[in-house]
Amino acid sequence: MRRKGNGVVAQSGGPTAVINNSLCGVIQGWLNNNFEGMLLGAVHGIRGVLEEDFIDLSRQKRETIKGLRFTPGSALGSCRYKLKEEDYRKLLNVFQKNDIRFFFYIGGNDSMDTANRVHQLAMEENYEMTVVGIPKTIDNDLPCTDHCPGYGSAAKFLAATVLETGIDLKGVLNNNRIKLLEVMGRNAGWLAASTALAKRAEEDAPHLIYLPEVPFSKEQFLLDVQKTYNKLGYAYIVVSEGIVDKSGRYIVSSSSRDSFGHRELGGLAGVLKELIENEVGIKVRCNVLGTAQRSAMHFASRTDADEAYMAGEEAVRLAARGESGFMVTFIRDEGLEYNCSTGKVELDRVANVEKKVPVEWINADHNFVNEKFIRYARPLIQGEVVVPTRDGLPDYRELEKLTDTLYAAKS
Amino acid sequence: MRRKGNGVVAQSGGPTAVINNSLCGVIQGWLNNNFEGMLLGAVHGIRGVLEEDFIDLSRQKRETIKGLRFTPGSALGSCRYKLKEEDYRKLLNVFQKNDIRFFFYIGGNDSMDTANRVHQLAMEENYEMTVVGIPKTIDNDLPCTDHCPGYGSAAKFLAATVLETGIDLKGVLNNNRIKLLEVMGRNAGWLAASTALAKRAEEDAPHLIYLPEVPFSKEQFLLDVQKTYNKLGYAYIVVSEGIVDKSGRYIVSSSSRDSFGHRELGGLAGVLKELIENEVGIKVRCNVLGTAQRSAMHFASRTDADEAYMAGEEAVRLAARGESGFMVTFIRDEGLEYNCSTGKVELDRVANVEKKVPVEWINADHNFVNEKFIRYARPLIQGEVVVPTRDGLPDYRELEKLTDTLYAAKS
Repeated sequence: MRRKGNGVVAQSGGPTAVINNSLCGVIQGWLNNNFEGMLLGAVHGIRGVLEEDFIDLSRQKRETIKGLRFTPGSALGSCRYKLKEEDYRKLLNVFQKNDIRFFFYIGGNDSMDTANRVHQLAMEENYEMTVVGIPKTIDNDLPCTDHCPGYGSAAKFLAATVLETGIDLKGVLNNNRIKLLEVMGRNAGWLAASTALAKRAEEDAPHLIYLPEVPFSKEQFLLDVQKTYNKLGYAYIVVSEGIVDKSGRYIVSSSSRDSFGHRELGGLAGVLKELIENEVGIKVRCNVLGTAQRSAMHFASRTDADEAYMAGEEAVRLAARGESGFMVTFIRDEGLEYNCSTGKVELDRVANVEKKVPVEWINADHNFVNEKFIRYARPLIQGEVVVPTRDGLPDYRELEKLTDTLYAAKS
Repeated sequence: MRRKGNGVVAQSGGPTAVINNSLCGVIQGWLNNNFEGMLLGAVHGIRGVLEEDFIDLSRQKRETIKGLRFTPGSALGSCRYKLKEEDYRKLLNVFQKNDIRFFFYIGGNDSMDTANRVHQLAMEENYEMTVVGIPKTIDNDLPCTDHCPGYGSAAKFLAATVLETGIDLKGVLNNNRIKLLEVMGRNAGWLAASTALAKRAEEDAPHLIYLPEVPFSKEQFLLDVQKTYNKLGYAYIVVSEGIVDKSGRYIVSSSSRDSFGHRELGGLAGVLKELIENEVGIKVRCNVLGTAQRSAMHFASRTDADEAYMAGEEAVRLAARGESGFMVTFIRDEGLEYNCSTGKVELDRVANVEKKVPVEWINADHNFVNEKFIRYARPLIQGEVVVPTRDGLPDYRELEKLTDTLYAAKS
């Protein structure tokens, strides 16, 4: 059976190292699944749809499409944009005008909300369209899925960095032997927790990990730091950007909010550095890796990349069966050996829900994770992605801005 | 001819990804060069010598010694310690007591000063000892050598990170599209400049690079940022931690100094972020990679690692010929093809001298480097070091704390 109509795929929110693997899965899945129409890429997420800013993905060179499997960042461009009331009519017009019958949205919580709204809109307007969400977030905070594409690679890079900077810290006798690493993750501690994978022996970094899932006490924190320092002569501390006090207030947050109304985080490392220096009297060095956490394809997880691709492919399979309003999920097999397959969940069960690290995976002192977390996370960082290099640096690829057929299709 | 007496090798200052390659070169060189005595490693640099804290390197497992070639950080431990007047007598005692006749010091400017003092001491006291320095610094600021072991790997990791986070920045439409990366390097801009290697097209990151070699003007900086942002809609800025105003004062420095009297740097990114946000009115995100810059063996330069090893081997060759008071240097062949061989220079010509980026390699606007710098730096980041992994993370090695024969030797 040939499937009629065109498709649009878009990427949204903060990129990951492997978000283009999902895009590649959608493109190759589309080409292999007997779709009749073109597959368009919307530039900068849902904004590209609103502005009819599309590129033709069906006509990209095979090499370029393959290159997506080792290229980080949003190849299509991404956005943070919350749909407004007046956008819905416009969206429907764009869909109708371009005969768009399939919509794939690769993103996190907010993007699944957007995908769900598009799905609802099509239903309400009796416009036949299949909407499928593809999970993507280094924060690993989407519900109803064992884990999220993007997380394993960020976890691997973070753990490797803690391993390496931990060796550095241990080696040098100087006067600033307290290291503080601020890690992304918003309200979930998955990323900060992942640095525990670096620890193979008692004295290895990290020594202390603070997560948003349990209340942060400055007093206890200072005692923990002092105790570790007294014991080892150095201390490696990892803090999640979203840690909160016992009333649930962020320890540090900016007054500004993003377009989804979330408070912007960051700046925590500086505040805790000052706290330690003033109260414990030992100098602190901070590492703030920022967006390097979500783009380090040069040391990404092969498992994560393969699964991200699999999620993209599965989304197309769902679309080919006309299953609309779902997000692809990951299901982990029971048993000792790691195996992951795909499932699906209704978008409205995912939209705007945050999944957190289970409190029973955090130690009693609230300053580290236990073996349950390690068993969960370790399989997700296995293997490396082979990245070709040019002149000593990764040779990442870009999509060609092929638009001419689109204008033909529109006219 | 058999060479009598024991040898000591030590590591000093901030570690690099490849400092253990030099150590490996010394150990393997020692084993291959007909030395009669033991080779000892001093724990934590010159402090280990003063405290007779040695480990036996001759008896380490072959696998462990080979493992140094892919292990970052100071395997022996490092220090920042300036010799005091009363230390000299103690040093001489340790040398005599343990029949130490060869001293290899792997380090940067300050360490070459220390090595020189040890060399002078031995001469003054008529104690027969051969002292050889092995260059090591990610800052690349040692004089009389084309470049320094450690620089190429830090440059490669920094350029890769700018490449990756630059793709990330370009992809996401949001409200904080100015990225600021603070880079190490002290008073030399070599590291900040190396990020230019990431740029392959006009709109690629980085867009602006500020070096300590030319005066930094806040006014011009703000104009540069505004101009780039207006043109592209985003801007990627790299600043060297040691930038100075036209009177030569650091833009940001802490009041504290390290044990060599150098002012401690850092915190610049936060100050410039505030400046841009207040004056240009666009939100800025900072990446401060800190010690990740000097320990990222997972993406180190193969060229750098091989040369670091070669420097260690060459030091032993000099020692075997009894050439004392020199530092190993790198000499680059003339001509198009990159080739590097070793030379030597008197320690007193190196000690405490800083080599900076030539001003003629910096553009007229003082906000980027030109093709001359690129031609210099590109060969230094070629190739990757193969790092074995275990459980998805680098499988770095540690030296065994073998000390028993030493106590036997001392008694």
